[in-house]
Amino acid sequence: MSKKLVFGHKSPDTDTICSAIVMAEMQKAKGEDVEAVRLGELNKETKYALEYLKVETPRLLEKVEEGQEVILVDHNEFQQSVDGIEAAKIITVVDHHRINNFATAEPLYYHAEPLGCTATILYKLCQIENIEVTPKMAGLMVSAIVSDTLLFKSPTCTNTDKEVATKLAEIAGLNIEEYGLNMLKAGTDLDDFTAEELISLDAKEVSKNDVKVVIAQVNTVSIEDVFKRQKELEEAINTKIEKDNIQLFVLAVTDILNSNSELLVLGNRSDVVEKQGKLENNRLFMPGVVSRKKQILPMIDKNLD
Amino acid sequence: MSKKLVFGHKSPDTDTICSAIVMAEMQKAKGEDVEAVRLGELNKETKYALEYLKVETPRLLEKVEEGQEVILVDHNEFQQSVDGIEAAKIITVVDHHRINNFATAEPLYYHAEPLGCTATILYKLCQIENIEVTPKMAGLMVSAIVSDTLLFKSPTCTNTDKEVATKLAEIAGLNIEEYGLNMLKAGTDLDDFTAEELISLDAKEVSKNDVKVVIAQVNTVSIEDVFKRQKELEEAINTKIEKDNIQLFVLAVTDILNSNSELLVLGNRSDVVEKQGKLENNRLFMPGVVSRKKQILPMIDKNLD
Repeated sequence: MSKKLVFGHKSPDTDTICSAIVMAEMQKAKGEDVEAVRLGELNKETKYALEYLKVETPRLLEKVEEGQEVILVDHNEFQQSVDGIEAAKIITVVDHHRINNFATAEPLYYHAEPLGCTATILYKLCQIENIEVTPKMAGLMVSAIVSDTLLFKSPTCTNTDKEVATKLAEIAGLNIEEYGLNMLKAGTDLDDFTAEELISLDAKEVSKNDVKVVIAQVNTVSIEDVFKRQKELEEAINTKIEKDNIQLFVLAVTDILNSNSELLVLGNRSDVVEKQGKLENNRLFMPGVVSRKKQILPMIDKNLD
Repeated sequence: MSKKLVFGHKSPDTDTICSAIVMAEMQKAKGEDVEAVRLGELNKETKYALEYLKVETPRLLEKVEEGQEVILVDHNEFQQSVDGIEAAKIITVVDHHRINNFATAEPLYYHAEPLGCTATILYKLCQIENIEVTPKMAGLMVSAIVSDTLLFKSPTCTNTDKEVATKLAEIAGLNIEEYGLNMLKAGTDLDDFTAEELISLDAKEVSKNDVKVVIAQVNTVSIEDVFKRQKELEEAINTKIEKDNIQLFVLAVTDILNSNSELLVLGNRSDVVEKQGKLENNRLFMPGVVSRKKQILPMIDKNLD
């Protein structure tokens, strides 16, 4: 039997990468032959975390072979997963998202909880299965929780996430406020990205009632700074829309200091977002909105009905 | 907020009923307001178990209202669940089946393991969450495990199922061999069922590539006894096929003493089963086959590709 592969979603974020590495460590502790891999380029936030923690970047996986045993973390929807996933053998999933467009031919281990971060669940599983949490694993899990909860400010953040992050920071010897803010800020340095890169750094595709939607998100400390490049971003989005036959593309530009987002909305089904509020210059400001999963996606999902 | 409802699948079996009752007890122990309900008539095996254990039969639920909070045990596929499930709010699932035709708009608690029985997973969750297992709960879980594993003879049975059942039998004060065999035998008394009842006692519907398949199963101590009613059974199946527009109906008659099954196969896609072996008089004997989930369903699933 070849090695099992562990990975998170495409357009990897810090939770996806760190949780894949931690999950691989957990399986190795149980004597399994596993390798953590990634499905795309690291963003700057994740790079900052791995460099700070002196952890090697997992290798890039382009596609999986038929029958390959895989473990999914931080996602389950096939369109967010690796190419070839339909023919792989999914043996385990640990996730904190809704379940959608997911199916297996055989029973599997699937553990999901409505928590702010996959890494929080992994920590709980370590406790249950008596797996030692090393300082390296703790540092990776803290990074994931800080990232997914925007340092506990996101509405997706639960008390459990906070409690677990505090315990993990102690094991890792990290000052969570200082390290966390530095890590988040590293992720908002968008200057040397092309517009094409910006709109695909953290993009998730969902489909409902035959409408193909992409919701991309970038974090920033200044929404206006990002919108200085609006024309260029729109061109990149329109090219993407045409190429991939997308009906609705939403780019959420999220101010991580003040917890607001401004959406840039394009596509022939932008009416789906207009049900929420009138677009001006293709833009909609959403005060208090920072979470794609808990705020933006449910809004779009509801309006698609 | 109204009471949460806990239930297993339609055409309830012993695991579905007992796990729903146990799950409700577990939630009550955590201070939740929940009620276990059932989606259909109890089979004779389950009736035997509840009477022996002096446990009340849950009330029948016909459909759920929009937004009703529900907890699913022992199933996830919507076509096996209650009418109205699409508009209910699924907050928790504990299951041991593959995941298919299941989706939620929001993150949820989902725990599945590839074990022989849902009740085995519930016992593990009691351990993890420090919930006391009462003799009543233990008796229900033993009954579920005996039923789903055919007293440990099914290929779906794992060492964990055996170990857990042994511990539970001790708590419940039950002789597992004696109680288990009596319970299984009670379930094979098919005489006073009409043919219509027999083919729907334990029937599961699955769909793939637009082919609608129903796989029903009855346990017996004599396959020949059941096939004495073949003509009558075929009439009932053909009526059902026409009424519900079914392409393939498989009735698995399973000999629980010798661990074999004979399939009765009807429908315009019976070729799907013929890929496995030639039907004679609409029948196919499958030595060593007792598990719908682990043996019959994967065979059909594969042949439907």
